[in-house]
Amino acid sequence: MTPEEFRTAGHALIDWIADHRARVPDLPVAAQVRPGEVRAALPAHPPTAPEAFDEVLADLEAVVVPGVTQTQHPGFYGWFPSNAGLASVLGDLASGGLGALGITWQSAPALTELEQVLTDWLRELCGLSPHWRGAIQDTASTGCLVALLAARERAGDGCEHRGGLQALQAPLVVYTSPEAHSSVAKGALLAGFGADNLRQVAVDPATYAMDTQDLRHAMAEDAAAGRVPAAVVATVGTTATTAMDPVRAVVEVAREHGAWVHVDAAMAGSAMLLPEMRHLFDGVDSADSLAWNPHKWMGTVLDTSLLYVRDVDHLVSVMSTTPSYLQAATDEQVVQYKDWGIPLGRRFRALKLWFQLRLDGVESVRHRLRRDLANARWLAAQVEAEPGWRVLAPVTLQTVCIRHEPEGLTGDALDAHTLAWVDAVNATGRAFLGASRLEGRWMVRVSIGAEATERGHVEQLWQLLRETASGSSGSERPGQGLGVDHGEAGDRAGEDDVETP
Amino acid sequence: MTPEEFRTAGHALIDWIADHRARVPDLPVAAQVRPGEVRAALPAHPPTAPEAFDEVLADLEAVVVPGVTQTQHPGFYGWFPSNAGLASVLGDLASGGLGALGITWQSAPALTELEQVLTDWLRELCGLSPHWRGAIQDTASTGCLVALLAARERAGDGCEHRGGLQALQAPLVVYTSPEAHSSVAKGALLAGFGADNLRQVAVDPATYAMDTQDLRHAMAEDAAAGRVPAAVVATVGTTATTAMDPVRAVVEVAREHGAWVHVDAAMAGSAMLLPEMRHLFDGVDSADSLAWNPHKWMGTVLDTSLLYVRDVDHLVSVMSTTPSYLQAATDEQVVQYKDWGIPLGRRFRALKLWFQLRLDGVESVRHRLRRDLANARWLAAQVEAEPGWRVLAPVTLQTVCIRHEPEGLTGDALDAHTLAWVDAVNATGRAFLGASRLEGRWMVRVSIGAEATERGHVEQLWQLLRETASGSSGSERPGQGLGVDHGEAGDRAGEDDVETP
Repeated sequence: MTPEEFRTAGHALIDWIADHRARVPDLPVAAQVRPGEVRAALPAHPPTAPEAFDEVLADLEAVVVPGVTQTQHPGFYGWFPSNAGLASVLGDLASGGLGALGITWQSAPALTELEQVLTDWLRELCGLSPHWRGAIQDTASTGCLVALLAARERAGDGCEHRGGLQALQAPLVVYTSPEAHSSVAKGALLAGFGADNLRQVAVDPATYAMDTQDLRHAMAEDAAAGRVPAAVVATVGTTATTAMDPVRAVVEVAREHGAWVHVDAAMAGSAMLLPEMRHLFDGVDSADSLAWNPHKWMGTVLDTSLLYVRDVDHLVSVMSTTPSYLQAATDEQVVQYKDWGIPLGRRFRALKLWFQLRLDGVESVRHRLRRDLANARWLAAQVEAEPGWRVLAPVTLQTVCIRHEPEGLTGDALDAHTLAWVDAVNATGRAFLGASRLEGRWMVRVSIGAEATERGHVEQLWQLLRETASGSSGSERPGQGLGVDHGEAGDRAGEDDVETP
Repeated sequence: MTPEEFRTAGHALIDWIADHRARVPDLPVAAQVRPGEVRAALPAHPPTAPEAFDEVLADLEAVVVPGVTQTQHPGFYGWFPSNAGLASVLGDLASGGLGALGITWQSAPALTELEQVLTDWLRELCGLSPHWRGAIQDTASTGCLVALLAARERAGDGCEHRGGLQALQAPLVVYTSPEAHSSVAKGALLAGFGADNLRQVAVDPATYAMDTQDLRHAMAEDAAAGRVPAAVVATVGTTATTAMDPVRAVVEVAREHGAWVHVDAAMAGSAMLLPEMRHLFDGVDSADSLAWNPHKWMGTVLDTSLLYVRDVDHLVSVMSTTPSYLQAATDEQVVQYKDWGIPLGRRFRALKLWFQLRLDGVESVRHRLRRDLANARWLAAQVEAEPGWRVLAPVTLQTVCIRHEPEGLTGDALDAHTLAWVDAVNATGRAFLGASRLEGRWMVRVSIGAEATERGHVEQLWQLLRETASGSSGSERPGQGLGVDHGEAGDRAGEDDVETP
C-alpha cells in the first residue's frame, strides 16, 4: 500500500471509527454470535487477489462488530473497565505509522527514552517514590511472571546461570491468596516452582484481604522444614471483590525471610492517580515490584501494562543474555528495555500514554475515576436499602458485588436464580455484567468504569437489575446467550478468571 | 477525546503519516540523537492541562522522528527487514478503534475466530500441513519460551502441577547451536533449565548449520549420564548468516529421545510463502512447534509473531490455569487463546494480517520477496568478483555477509578496519547496516528486504560500500555515530543480538 493509498483508506477508517464509537451506545453490549459463526462468515482459503478497501470495511462492519462484546458501551459492567481511549488510539496509530523497531536503544532511542519519561510521569502522578523504575509490558500476567522470575533468581542466587531451578537443594516457595488472579498461579507454575510450592494464604472473612498472620505462619513452617520462602504476590484490588491485601504488613513479614514482594494492582492501580485513595496502597512503596494496567480503568488502549521494580540491576541480571563484550562504557548512558522483559522486539507503546496524558490531561482521568467511585457508592447504597438484596463485600473502589436473595432461596436454587438473572440482564443487550463465585456461591459483579458510563446509566442499570431479578425483564434477543448459557455452572468463569492483568 | 475530536485529529495524523512515509527516503537512516537527548527535550514532569493536537504532532516531528532509526528507509540494511506495511497499520488502527478486549472467546468471538482463520490462511500459504494450529504471539522470543515450557512439561511429565522443576530427579537438557538467537538461551534460562543444561551443538564450518552428528553424540552422552534430553531448538535462517539447520535430521535424532523440537524461523519464515524456497524448510512439518514473524520480512507491523504447535492439548495443559469447573461441553466449540500463551488480555492482532492479505494480496508480498532474493544474489556476485572482497557465508536468502580485506590486513587490524568502515557507511545517512562476529572476527551483514529497497538502491549501496572501504566516503555528519562508535568492540552487538525473533 502506497502512502497515497494509505491516506485515502486511512481517512475512511478514521471516519468509520468515529462513527462506530458514536453509535456504540445503540449496539447490544454482548457479542451477537454463536461459536463458529464468525469463522463461517469468512473464506476458508486466503484471497488470491487484492480487494478494495470498501470490501474490508464492509466486513469489519458486518462480520467483526457483531462478534465483539462492546467494552466501550456505557452499559458495560463486565470483567473490569477496559477503556480504549481515543487519544491513546491515535498514539498507537502514530506508533504503527512511524514503523519504528524497538530492539535496543540504538534502534529507536526515542522509543526507549519516551518510555522512561512516561513511566516516570506516571510514577509521579501516582505518588510513588522516585526509586521505582518502570517499563511497559503487554499485560500484568507477563509482569507477574517477570517478577516471579526475578524473585526466583534472588532466592536461588542466580541459579539460572548454573544448574537452574532443577539443581537447587531447597525448594523455593511462593505465597499468595485464593483471591489473587489466576495469572499468579500461572506465573508460579511457568516459572517452575510447581503447584506444591504455591501456598494459598488465608484471607480475612470480612474483607477477603490476605491474613498476614497466616502468611507469617506459613512462611515459618516452610523455613523450619528447610524450604525457602521466595516470593509473595499481594493484590491491591482483587479480581472478585477489589479486596486490598495489607501490603505494609505483607512486606514486613516477607522481609524476615528475604522474600520478594510483588504487588498486583492491575485494575486498581489507576486509583493511585487519586491522592485521596492512596491510603489503600499503604506499603506498596516498599515492595520489590508493582504492576498496574493503564489499559484498564485509566483507559489507555490495550496493551499498556506498567511494571515497576526497585532493583533494576537484579532484573537485568535475570533477563539479559547480552554477551559480556556488550558491557561497555556507553551502556551506562542508556536503558536497554530488552533486558527488562521477555520479548526483544518491542512496539513504541509509550506513544499511547504520551498522547493520552497530553491530549486528555490527567485531570479529566481523575474526574472520571471519581465519578465512577461515586457511582459505585450510590449503587451499593441502593442495593443495601432494598429488601431481599445484599452487597456482599466492602466497596473499596468501583466494583459492587451483589446478590438478589428472594426469601427462602438458598444453596443451589439461589445459584440457579443468580445465573439465570445475569443471563436475563445480558440478554437485554442494554447491559453486560458477570457472575463470580464468592465463598462457593455465585454472585454478581457490577464493575463500573466504562468511560461512557454516567450516573444515569447506573440508575438505568439498577432499574434493569430489579426488573430482571423479578422476571419482568421482557423478551430475550436471539443470539445473546452466547457463553452465558449457565444451566450448568461449568459454563462460567470463576472469580479468578474475571479479570485480566 | 470525543469521536468528533478523534475524527479531526485522526485525519491530521493520517495525513502526517502519509507525508512521513513519503519523505522517509530523504531522511538519514540512523537515528540522529545522542543518549539522553530525547529525554532532555521532554518535560521532566507530566503536563497538568490538556494540550492541542497540533502541539503533540509538532513534537512527534521535532523530537520523535530524529530519534528513530528509519527501518522503512530503502537504505535500511540493518538487523533484519522490519517492514511496517501500511495496510497492516490500518488493520492495527481498526483494532484500537474497535476497542475490543481479548480475554476469552466470549469477550470477543471475532478476535478469536479471525485469529484462527488468519493463522490457517498463513499455514496454507506457507505450504504447511493442516495438523498445525497457530496463534499470534508478540515475538518469537516469547514463542520460543512458550515452546520450551511445553517441552519442559512434556519431558517432566507435567511437573508444574506437582513439585515443579525443582522436584525432578534427572535434569532436563536443551540443545541448540551457537548460531541460534540469544532468545533461545534466554528462554532456556527463564524456563529454569539452567545454563549448565543448555548444550551448544557444533555447527558445520562451511554452512554454519547445526551438526546433527554432534547433536546425536551430545544427547547420547546426556542420556547415558542420567540426564533427560528435553528440547532441541533448531534455527531455519540463523541471525548472523541465515544458516539453515537440517530440521529433518534434527527431528530424527530428537525423536530417539522423545525431545521436543522447536523451529525458530523468525526472520526466514516469510520465505515459506515462496514454493521454490520450501526445500530450505525440509522437515519443519514434523517438528513440534514453529515460530515465524510476519512482522519482519513479510511486512506486517509489529507485533505479529506466529507460533504453530502440533499438540494443542498439551500446550493448553501447560499454559491454562482454568479451574476444572470451566471444562464444560461448550469449551469443545471454541478456542481460548489465553491458554496458548502467557498474557490473558490480548489485542485484536489478526486484523493486521487480515488487512494486509486482503488489501495488498499475497502475490505482491511474494513478488517483493523474490525481488529481495535476486538483489542479494546480485550483490553477492558483485562482491565475489571484486578483488580484496569476500562473501563469508552461503547466501541462502536475503542476507549477504561480507568483508573488505585489504592486502596484509588481518586480525585486530582487520577488525578495526571493518568497524570503522561500517561506521563510515552509517554516518553518511544514506544506508544503515550492522556488523556481527563470525568465527571471532567482525564482518558486515547486508540484510536486504526493506519494502522500499529496489535494485537501484542496492547498486547505490555497493557503490557506497566501495567508496567508504577505500576511505573516500566524504564527510561524516554530526550526531550519526550514536552507538556505532566502535573504537572498542564492546560497543557493538554480537551476532546473537542482531536479530529479534
